Amino acid sequence: MKTRYGILVLVLAGSAAAQKQSKPLVIEEQGSFFVGGETKVLPAPPAAPNGRGPGLPGGDITVNQMYVQYQIPPNGNRHVPVVMVHGCCLSSKTWETTPDGRMGWNEYFVRKDRPVYLADQVSRARSGFDPSVFNAVRAGTVPPSQLPTVLDASHQGAWAVFRFGPTYGKAFRDEQFPVSAVDELYKQMIPDLNSTLPNPNPTWINMAALAVKLKGAILMGHSESGFFPEQAALIDPSGVRGIISIEMPCATTLTAAQLQTLAKIPTLVMFGDHLGDVQGFNNWPTSFDSCNAFVKQVNDAGGDAEMMSLPKMGIKGNSHMLMQDKNNLQLADLILAWIDKHVEDKHVEKKGR
Amino acid sequence: MKTRYGILVLVLAGSAAAQKQSKPLVIEEQGSFFVGGETKVLPAPPAAPNGRGPGLPGGDITVNQMYVQYQIPPNGNRHVPVVMVHGCCLSSKTWETTPDGRMGWNEYFVRKDRPVYLADQVSRARSGFDPSVFNAVRAGTVPPSQLPTVLDASHQGAWAVFRFGPTYGKAFRDEQFPVSAVDELYKQMIPDLNSTLPNPNPTWINMAALAVKLKGAILMGHSESGFFPEQAALIDPSGVRGIISIEMPCATTLTAAQLQTLAKIPTLVMFGDHLGDVQGFNNWPTSFDSCNAFVKQVNDAGGDAEMMSLPKMGIKGNSHMLMQDKNNLQLADLILAWIDKHVEDKHVEKKGR
Repeated sequence: MKTRYGILVLVLAGSAAAQKQSKPLVIEEQGSFFVGGETKVLPAPPAAPNGRGPGLPGGDITVNQMYVQYQIPPNGNRHVPVVMVHGCCLSSKTWETTPDGRMGWNEYFVRKDRPVYLADQVSRARSGFDPSVFNAVRAGTVPPSQLPTVLDASHQGAWAVFRFGPTYGKAFRDEQFPVSAVDELYKQMIPDLNSTLPNPNPTWINMAALAVKLKGAILMGHSESGFFPEQAALIDPSGVRGIISIEMPCATTLTAAQLQTLAKIPTLVMFGDHLGDVQGFNNWPTSFDSCNAFVKQVNDAGGDAEMMSLPKMGIKGNSHMLMQDKNNLQLADLILAWIDKHVEDKHVEKKGR
Repeated sequence: MKTRYGILVLVLAGSAAAQKQSKPLVIEEQGSFFVGGETKVLPAPPAAPNGRGPGLPGGDITVNQMYVQYQIPPNGNRHVPVVMVHGCCLSSKTWETTPDGRMGWNEYFVRKDRPVYLADQVSRARSGFDPSVFNAVRAGTVPPSQLPTVLDASHQGAWAVFRFGPTYGKAFRDEQFPVSAVDELYKQMIPDLNSTLPNPNPTWINMAALAVKLKGAILMGHSESGFFPEQAALIDPSGVRGIISIEMPCATTLTAAQLQTLAKIPTLVMFGDHLGDVQGFNNWPTSFDSCNAFVKQVNDAGGDAEMMSLPKMGIKGNSHMLMQDKNNLQLADLILAWIDKHVEDKHVEKKGR
């Protein structure tokens, strides 16, 4: 046992040392901005000043805006920007420093010369949410039954849904998620107010608009947002150069016209391991099957869609949070190689026209 | 008129060009992490799966954690880190790209070799909030009257409280806030759930803990969080090397022992212009007076506190959002010079001991 773990420690220590020795990060431009957003007129002036200033009539608020934070490396203009959108009960923290302190995909992609844009979903984190219904219930003008569900993932739920192990607190033997740092993941899990959103989800609209603003972008979604790139492309495909969908249920009832639209966009779908190995939670095999069907539909419509099932490629033990798993940079390399082959080559062609 | 505006345009264009020509940003290390956070056991398992997975018992969530995003420049270890904490109804977006697209204080301080840490207040943005009371009201186990106030700043309220002009839509003649881009500020304004927090505010505790973790830091607060650096220092002063408090009401009933604690920490208070010039909103003169009194109390206790009233220094037209005003980098230079003189000199002394 000692020898076995001794090797493991050495390998990990070597990896950590390699990361510490990484060169300083050079950024050509960084910043943040919003996409979308519309004015909502509040129905009545509040009784209390409530930040409006006394004597001021009623008030307008802005809703449905999407906060975006970006970094562009010096050679960024040679590559198609990548937009990363997090999943349920999470924020853009998803893509940053991992729970055990390693480099996240956001920085790694920048170090690989990609402009990276992190978007907080509308109604989450720095994008804010529309609070008017909560205050209306509090004021008694709306019944409590109209309160939206505030989705919060518990530790126990995350352990199961994110596939850290067969039962709560017990990790899979080959688990890639850094379970010793799982408490740091739990801190990332924040309330999800997507149930307050109109249809279509403003995040889809804003992702499509962001891709246009960037004059072409690859949209990446995960879990709750895994199919958002497709939804964005169905609203406006003109800016969407590529789609990366990670671990989610796929729609399989799209129309022929919708499939035609998606078939014009290179699409990568990625799934990790242990899909059917969690006791009492069996949604993942169904999601996987739906995405295999979706990939086939897109390809049958003349598209370029690929299902990357990690265990089928010999990469074992990946959790649902594969961008935070111990082999997260290996997986990033797979995605970067896919982008180079399926999106960037076409991008160059288009530029050359 | 044409000539006048022609000059203005030239000056602005020159400034924008200068910014575009700025050298690439070099980052020694960047990332994000959480400070604080504790486990809360939810009282009963929800009826719906609700992200917990069917068959799983109840659930725990993490609350009161504080999300922190940081960048350390190559020479960062020569300077005391600066922690920036935003105000009411805002997030760390406050310190980033300004509404009209100029550089924010976060990047400017990094370019001036300072390690910068942006903290989203507990219960806001990427720090999340405790949603259990909302779901309890929805489930009918708690009456609607127990719903917390969700503070949302309206456009009209922000215009008045942030002092963009005497009445809504009309700017002061010398207004420094980029009012043509005010819609972009409105998108930054997100619901404030501080009313759900326990006392003492976990953000104070986490700010003090962050200063200790960083082996010394300057804490900067603004508006709602303007006095948070002092509150953090009163909980644990051991990591707090300096305090920068921007535009807030100050406590004037501190005990002699509390003033003794604060008197050991160099403190800068900064206020902008037009404090009494907004029709129907007269809180600012009172806040200014309370802070003048506080500064005197700290100095009377042997401290090093300074009130920087910008109009008294001949710098006119600054709004409440002075980190976003057109002269924001000039104000940053004032703060950096104050840090160099009042904090860093002492820092060097301490290191030399």
